[in-house]
Amino acid sequence: MSSQTDSVINCAAYTGGRRVASIPIKDISEHLSDPNGFVWIGLFDPDEPTLKQIQEEFQLHDLAIEDAHRAHQRPKLETYGDTLFIVVRTVQINGAHQIDFGETHFFLGKNFIVSIRHGSSRAYSEVRSRCESAPHLLKKGPGFALYAVMDSIVDGYFPVIDELEGELETLEERIFSEKPSRESTRQIYDLKRRLVDVKRAISPLIDMCTRLMRFDLDLIPEDTRPYFRDVYDHVVRINEMVDSSREILGSALEANFSLISLSENEIQKRFAGWAAIIGVPTMVAGIYGMNFNDMPELHWHYGYPVVLSVTIGLCVVLYLLFKRSGWL
Amino acid sequence: MSSQTDSVINCAAYTGGRRVASIPIKDISEHLSDPNGFVWIGLFDPDEPTLKQIQEEFQLHDLAIEDAHRAHQRPKLETYGDTLFIVVRTVQINGAHQIDFGETHFFLGKNFIVSIRHGSSRAYSEVRSRCESAPHLLKKGPGFALYAVMDSIVDGYFPVIDELEGELETLEERIFSEKPSRESTRQIYDLKRRLVDVKRAISPLIDMCTRLMRFDLDLIPEDTRPYFRDVYDHVVRINEMVDSSREILGSALEANFSLISLSENEIQKRFAGWAAIIGVPTMVAGIYGMNFNDMPELHWHYGYPVVLSVTIGLCVVLYLLFKRSGWL
Amino acid sequence: MSSQTDSVINCAAYTGGRRVASIPIKDISEHLSDPNGFVWIGLFDPDEPTLKQIQEEFQLHDLAIEDAHRAHQRPKLETYGDTLFIVVRTVQINGAHQIDFGETHFFLGKNFIVSIRHGSSRAYSEVRSRCESAPHLLKKGPGFALYAVMDSIVDGYFPVIDELEGELETLEERIFSEKPSRESTRQIYDLKRRLVDVKRAISPLIDMCTRLMRFDLDLIPEDTRPYFRDVYDHVVRINEMVDSSREILGSALEANFSLISLSENEIQKRFAGWAAIIGVPTMVAGIYGMNFNDMPELHWHYGYPVVLSVTIGLCVVLYLLFKRSGWL
Amino acid sequence: MSSQTDSVINCAAYTGGRRVASIPIKDISEHLSDPNGFVWIGLFDPDEPTLKQIQEEFQLHDLAIEDAHRAHQRPKLETYGDTLFIVVRTVQINGAHQIDFGETHFFLGKNFIVSIRHGSSRAYSEVRSRCESAPHLLKKGPGFALYAVMDSIVDGYFPVIDELEGELETLEERIFSEKPSRESTRQIYDLKRRLVDVKRAISPLIDMCTRLMRFDLDLIPEDTRPYFRDVYDHVVRINEMVDSSREILGSALEANFSLISLSENEIQKRFAGWAAIIGVPTMVAGIYGMNFNDMPELHWHYGYPVVLSVTIGLCVVLYLLFKRSGWL
Amino acid sequence: MSSQTDSVINCAAYTGGRRVASIPIKDISEHLSDPNGFVWIGLFDPDEPTLKQIQEEFQLHDLAIEDAHRAHQRPKLETYGDTLFIVVRTVQINGAHQIDFGETHFFLGKNFIVSIRHGSSRAYSEVRSRCESAPHLLKKGPGFALYAVMDSIVDGYFPVIDELEGELETLEERIFSEKPSRESTRQIYDLKRRLVDVKRAISPLIDMCTRLMRFDLDLIPEDTRPYFRDVYDHVVRINEMVDSSREILGSALEANFSLISLSENEIQKRFAGWAAIIGVPTMVAGIYGMNFNDMPELHWHYGYPVVLSVTIGLCVVLYLLFKRSGWL
Repeated sequence: MSSQTDSVINCAAYTGGRRVASIPIKDISEHLSDPNGFVWIGLFDPDEPTLKQIQEEFQLHDLAIEDAHRAHQRPKLETYGDTLFIVVRTVQINGAHQIDFGETHFFLGKNFIVSIRHGSSRAYSEVRSRCESAPHLLKKGPGFALYAVMDSIVDGYFPVIDELEGELETLEERIFSEKPSRESTRQIYDLKRRLVDVKRAISPLIDMCTRLMRFDLDLIPEDTRPYFRDVYDHVVRINEMVDSSREILGSALEANFSLISLSENEIQKRFAGWAAIIGVPTMVAGIYGMNFNDMPELHWHYGYPVVLSVTIGLCVVLYLLFKRSGWL
Repeated sequence: MSSQTDSVINCAAYTGGRRVASIPIKDISEHLSDPNGFVWIGLFDPDEPTLKQIQEEFQLHDLAIEDAHRAHQRPKLETYGDTLFIVVRTVQINGAHQIDFGETHFFLGKNFIVSIRHGSSRAYSEVRSRCESAPHLLKKGPGFALYAVMDSIVDGYFPVIDELEGELETLEERIFSEKPSRESTRQIYDLKRRLVDVKRAISPLIDMCTRLMRFDLDLIPEDTRPYFRDVYDHVVRINEMVDSSREILGSALEANFSLISLSENEIQKRFAGWAAIIGVPTMVAGIYGMNFNDMPELHWHYGYPVVLSVTIGLCVVLYLLFKRSGWL
Repeated sequence: MSSQTDSVINCAAYTGGRRVASIPIKDISEHLSDPNGFVWIGLFDPDEPTLKQIQEEFQLHDLAIEDAHRAHQRPKLETYGDTLFIVVRTVQINGAHQIDFGETHFFLGKNFIVSIRHGSSRAYSEVRSRCESAPHLLKKGPGFALYAVMDSIVDGYFPVIDELEGELETLEERIFSEKPSRESTRQIYDLKRRLVDVKRAISPLIDMCTRLMRFDLDLIPEDTRPYFRDVYDHVVRINEMVDSSREILGSALEANFSLISLSENEIQKRFAGWAAIIGVPTMVAGIYGMNFNDMPELHWHYGYPVVLSVTIGLCVVLYLLFKRSGWL
Repeated sequence: MSSQTDSVINCAAYTGGRRVASIPIKDISEHLSDPNGFVWIGLFDPDEPTLKQIQEEFQLHDLAIEDAHRAHQRPKLETYGDTLFIVVRTVQINGAHQIDFGETHFFLGKNFIVSIRHGSSRAYSEVRSRCESAPHLLKKGPGFALYAVMDSIVDGYFPVIDELEGELETLEERIFSEKPSRESTRQIYDLKRRLVDVKRAISPLIDMCTRLMRFDLDLIPEDTRPYFRDVYDHVVRINEMVDSSREILGSALEANFSLISLSENEIQKRFAGWAAIIGVPTMVAGIYGMNFNDMPELHWHYGYPVVLSVTIGLCVVLYLLFKRSGWL
Repeated sequence: MSSQTDSVINCAAYTGGRRVASIPIKDISEHLSDPNGFVWIGLFDPDEPTLKQIQEEFQLHDLAIEDAHRAHQRPKLETYGDTLFIVVRTVQINGAHQIDFGETHFFLGKNFIVSIRHGSSRAYSEVRSRCESAPHLLKKGPGFALYAVMDSIVDGYFPVIDELEGELETLEERIFSEKPSRESTRQIYDLKRRLVDVKRAISPLIDMCTRLMRFDLDLIPEDTRPYFRDVYDHVVRINEMVDSSREILGSALEANFSLISLSENEIQKRFAGWAAIIGVPTMVAGIYGMNFNDMPELHWHYGYPVVLSVTIGLCVVLYLLFKRSGWL
C-alpha cells in the first residue's frame, strides 16, 4: 500500500473546472458519474497493483496497461474503444550538460485523465496548479488537461535544442579557428548521435498532434483543438530546428574534413621548404668534402668563407622564396 | 498611450476600395458594420495593451494574440473560426551584405486586416499607397490587401537570392582559379548556413499559398485567388532557386575537396623532384669523399671538373624529365 | 508417409479456445464444420505431397502453395478469396554471433490456420502452449493464433537489434580509441551489410501490420485488431532502431575517415620533426668535413667538442620546439 | 506598328482543320464566332501594345499578360476562367556546344491559341506547316495545335541530353585513362551545373502533362489527350535520363576522387623507392668518408671498387624489389 | 512479303484455351468473332507494313503503333479505348558476361494479344507451348497469355541480378584482401552504371503491375489478377535486390576509399621508418668525417669498429621499435 501512495502523486476530482476533492483511487468510480466533472490522476513509476486498480476503475485494455507498465515505448497515440492511450518522450538537460530522456503515458477518457511518468522528468504539479488557476479553461474537460501537460513536455525540448545549437556553434568556431583534432571529430560525432536521439523522440509527435487536432476523436472537444494545434506548431518548430542542425552539422563535418586535408597540404609544404633549406648546404658541403687532388677552390685563401657565405645566401633566398609562395 | 501611437503605423477604413478615413483603434467597431467596407490596420512591434485592444475589437483567439506578441514563430497559416492568422518571415540584405530576417503577422477577417511587423523589414506604407491608387482592385476586400503585402514580402526574397547566387559564382570562380584555402572552405560553409536559413523561411510558404489559392477559405474571394497563385508561383521559384543553389554548392564543396587533394599531389611531386635533384649530387659527392687509398679518379687531373660537370648534367636531365612529366 | 509425419509438427482442433484433439491431416475436414472451432496446423519444411494435401483440405490457390513450397519469398500479405497468405522472415543470432534468417508462411482462413516454417527458426510449440493456457483469448479464433506466432517472430528481432547496436558501440569505442585500421573499416562495412539485410526483412512488415489491423479483412475480428497494432508498434520500433543505427553508422564511417586523415597528418608531422633533427647534424658535419686549406675552426683545440655540443644543443632545441607545437 | 509586325510571326484562322486566311490581329474577333474554327497566333518577343491588343481580343487576365511580358517564368500551367496559360522552357545546343534556354508561353482558349516565344529557340513555322498538312488532326482544335508545338519543344530536349550523355562518357573515359587533373574536376562540376539547369526546366513538365492528359480540362478534348500522354511519356524519359546522368556523374566524381588518392599513393611509393636508392649509397659513402686512423678497408687494394660494386649491387637489388612490389 | 513472314513468329487462334489453327494475319478478323476464343500473335522486329496490317486488323491507335515501331521506349502501360499498350524491357546475360537489354511491346484487347519483340531477347515460343499444355489456364483469355510472357520476362531478371550480386561479392573480397587499385575503382563504377540501368528497366514495372492487378481494367479478368500479383511480387523483389546492391555498393565505395587512405598511411610510415634507419648512420658517418685536428675517437685503435657497431646497433633498435609500433 505504501508503494501505491508513493506512486500516486495526485488524484483529484474536478467539476466545472474547479478542484472538488483529492480522492483515493478506490473512490474514483463514485466521481465518474458527474457529467460536468472529471478525474485527473498523476502517477510516477507505478507498480503493478496500482496499475491493475487503475485498469479496473476505467476498464482499460490489457495491452495498453502492459505498455504503461513496461515503459520504453516509442511515442504513439492509440485508441482503445473510447479511451486514448498516448506515449510521449520527455527530455531534460541534466547537470552534466547531458540529455536525460524520460517517458510519460496518458490514458484519456470522457471524464478522466491518467498521466504516468517514467524515468527522469519534472513533476507536473506546477502544470496542474496553473490549470487550476484558470477554471474557465480547465472546464473544457480532461482534453484540456492533456494539452496542458503535453504543452509543458514539448516546451521542455526548447532548452535542449538551444543547448545543442549552442554546442554546434562552439564546434563551428573551433573547427575554423583551431587546428583539426581528434577531439573535434569526436564532438561532431557525439552531437550527431544526440540529434538522432532527439529527432526520434520528437518526430512522431507531429503525426500525433495532427490526429489530436484534426481527426474525429470525440475525446478532444472542438474548442480544445486549437490548443493542440499550438502544440503541433511547437513540435514542428523543434523538428525543423533539429533538421537544420543536422544539415549544418553535415556541412561542418565536410568542412572539418576539407580543413584536415588542407592542413596536410600545409605540413607537406613546410616540410618540403625546410628540407630544401637543409639539403642545399649539405650538398654543397659534400662537394667540397670530395678528395680530388685538383680542387683549386680548396686552396684559395678565402675559399671557405666565400663558399660558406654563398651557401648561407642560397638558404636565405630559398627561405624568402618559400615564404613568399606561402610554403613556410 | 504614446507607445500605442508609436506602434500603430496606420489604421484606416475603406469603402468600395477607397480610403474613407484614418481612424483611431477604439472607433474601429463603428466601421465594421459597413458591408462593402473594411478596416486595414498596420502595427509595428506592438505592446501588449495595443494587442489586447485589437483582440477585443475583432474577437481574436488568445493563442493567436500570444503568438503575435511573442514573435519568433515559424511561417504558418491558422484558421480560428472565421479569422485567419498568418505568419510570414521577411528578409532583407543589410549594408554589410548580410541577411536580416524579420517577421510579419496578419489577422484577416471578413472586413478587416491587421498586419503586425516585427524586427527588421521595410514598412508597408508604399504597398498601401499602391493599393489605394487602384481602388478597382482594393474593393475586392481585405483579401486583396493581404495579397498586396504578401506579394511585396515575397518579392523581397529575390534580391537576397540574387546576392547568394552571386556569392556562389564568386566562390566558384575562386575555387577553380585560386589555390585551395581555409578561406574558401569557410565561405562554402557560411553560404550553406544562410541557404538553410532562407530555405526554412520560404518553404512553408508553398503550403500556405496552396491553401490560400485553393481551399475552401471563404475569406479569400474567388477573384482574388489568382493573385495568390501568383505569389505561390514566386514562392516556388524562390524555393527552386534555393534548392539549385544548395545542390550546386554541394558540388562546389566536392570539387573543392578534389582540388585540395590534387594540390597535395602537386606538392608531393614537386618535393620529390627537387629532393632527387639535390640528392643525386650529394650522393656523388659522398662517393668522392671516401678515403680509400686507391681511388684513381681522385688523382686524375680533370677528375674534379669532370665529376662536377657530369653531376650537374645529371641534375639538368632530371630537371627536364620531371618538367616533362609534370612533376615540376 | 514418414516425411509427412516429420514435417507435420502439430495439428490440433480447438473449440471455444480449448484444444479438443490432435488430429491427422486427413481428418481435418470433419472438424472444419464446427462454427466455434478452428484447426491449427504447424508444418516444418514440408514436402510437396503434404502441401498438396493441405491445399486440397482448405482449397488453397496454386500460386500460394507454390510460394509456400519454394520459400525464399519476400515478406508479404496476399488475399486469395477468403484466405490470407502471409510470409514473414524470422531472425536468430546463432552461436557464432551471426544472424540466421528463416521464413515462416501462414495460411489463414475462417476456421483454420497453417504455419509453415522454413530454415532456421525456433519452433512455435511454446507459443502454442502459451495460447492454450489462455483459452479466453484463443477463442477469438485463428486470427489470435496468427497474432501469437507473429508476435513471437517479431520479438525475435529485438535480441538481433541489441546485438547489432552492441557491435556498433564497440566499433565506435574502437574507432575513437585505437588507431585507424583495415579491420575497423571492414567491421563498419559488415555491420552495414547486416543492417541492410535486417531492414529488408523487417520493413515490409509495417505495411502488412497496417493492413492486418485496419483494413476490411473479415478474417481478423474486431477485438483481435488491437493485438496486431501491438505487433505493428514493435515492428515500427525495430525499424526505427535499424534506421538510427544506419544513420549513426554512416557518421561513424565519416568519423573513421576523418581520423584516418588526421593520423596521416600526425605521421607527416612526426616524420618531418625527426628528419629535421637528423638533418641538421648531418649538414653541420658535412660543413666541417670540407677540405678547404683554411678552415680555422678545424685547428682550434676545442673545435670538435664545441661544434658537437652546439649541434646537439640545436637538436634539443628543435626537439622541444616540435614537441611544443605538437609535431612530435 | 512596325514592332507589332515584327513580333507577330503568324496569325491565321482555321476551319475544320484547314487554314482559311492570314488575318491581322485586329480582325480576330470576327473569326472567333465560327464554332468549328479557331485562330492560331504566333508571336516572338512581343512588345507591350501587341500583348495589350491580344489581351483585349481574348479577355485574358492581367496577371497572365504580365507574366507573358516579363518572361523568365518557371514552367507552369494555370487556368484563368476558361483560358489556359502555359509556360514551357525550350532548350537548344548552340554552335559552341552550350545550352541556350528559351521560353515559350501559350494562351489556349476554346477557339484560339497564342504562342509567344522568348529568347533563343527555333520558330514554330515548321510545326505549323506539318499541322496544316494533316487537317484531319488539326480539326481537333487548338488543343491539337498546342500538342504539336509542345511535342516539338520536348523533342528539342533529346539532342541536349544526348550531348550531355556524350560529354559524360568522354569524361568517364578521361577519368579512368588519364591522370587526375584540375581540368576533369572542373568538367564534372560544369556538367553537374548544366544537368541541374536542364532538370529544373524539364521536371515541372511532368505535372503539367499529367494535368493536360487527365484532368477535367474541357479545353483538351477527349481524343487529343492520348497525344499529351505521348508528350508526357517523352518528358518522363528525358527526366529519367537526366536523373540517371546525375547519379552516374555522382559516381564518376567519387571514382575521380578515389583515383586522385590512389595517384597520391603512387607518387609516395615512387618517391620512397628512389629516396632509398639514392640514400643507401650516400650512407655507405659517408661511412668510408670517416677519418678513423684504423679503417683497414681503406687500405685494401681493391677496397674502392669492391665497395662501389657492392653499393651499386644493393641499389639494383632495391630497384628490383621496389619494381616487383609495384612501388616503382 | 518475305519480311512479313520473317517477323511474324507465330499467329494462332485459340478457343477454350486450345489452339485451333495457325492463321495468316490477313485472316485474323474471321477468328475475332468467336466469343470464347482469342488470337495470339508473336512478332519480332516487324517492318512497317506488317505493323500497318496489325493496326488495321485490330484498330490500334497511331501513337501506339508509332511507339511499337520505333522501340527504345521506357516501360509503360497505356490504355487506348479498350486496348492496352504495354512496353517492357527484357534483360539477358550474354556470353561476355554483359547485360543485353531488349524490349517487348504488347497490344492486349478483349480477344487478341500481340507481342512484339525488339532487340536481343529469348523467343517466347517456349512460353506459348507451356500455356498450350495447360488449356484450363489459357482459356482465361489473352490476359493470361500476357501474364505468361511477362512472367517469363521478369524471371529473366533474376540471373542478371545474381550475376551482379556475384560481381559485388567478388569486388568486396577484392577490396578487402588486395591492395587498392585503379582496377577495383573502375569495377565499382561499372557495377554502379549497370545497376542504374537495371533499376531504370525494372522499377516502372511496379506501377504497371499494380495497375494490372488492381485497377478497373476489364481486360484482365478477376481470376487472372492473382497471377499479375505474382509478377508484381517478383518485380518488387528484383527491385529490392537492386536497391540493396546499390546501397551496399555505396558502402563498398566508401570502404575502398578508406582503405586507399589507410594504405597511404602505411606507405608514409614505412618510408619514415626506413628513412630513419638510413639517416642515422649517415649522420654518424658525417660526424666522424669532419676534419678537426683534435678528434680523439679517430685515433683510438678500436674507434672504427666501435662506432660502426654502435651505429648498426642503433639501426637494429630503430628497426625493432618501428616494427613493434607497426610502422614497418
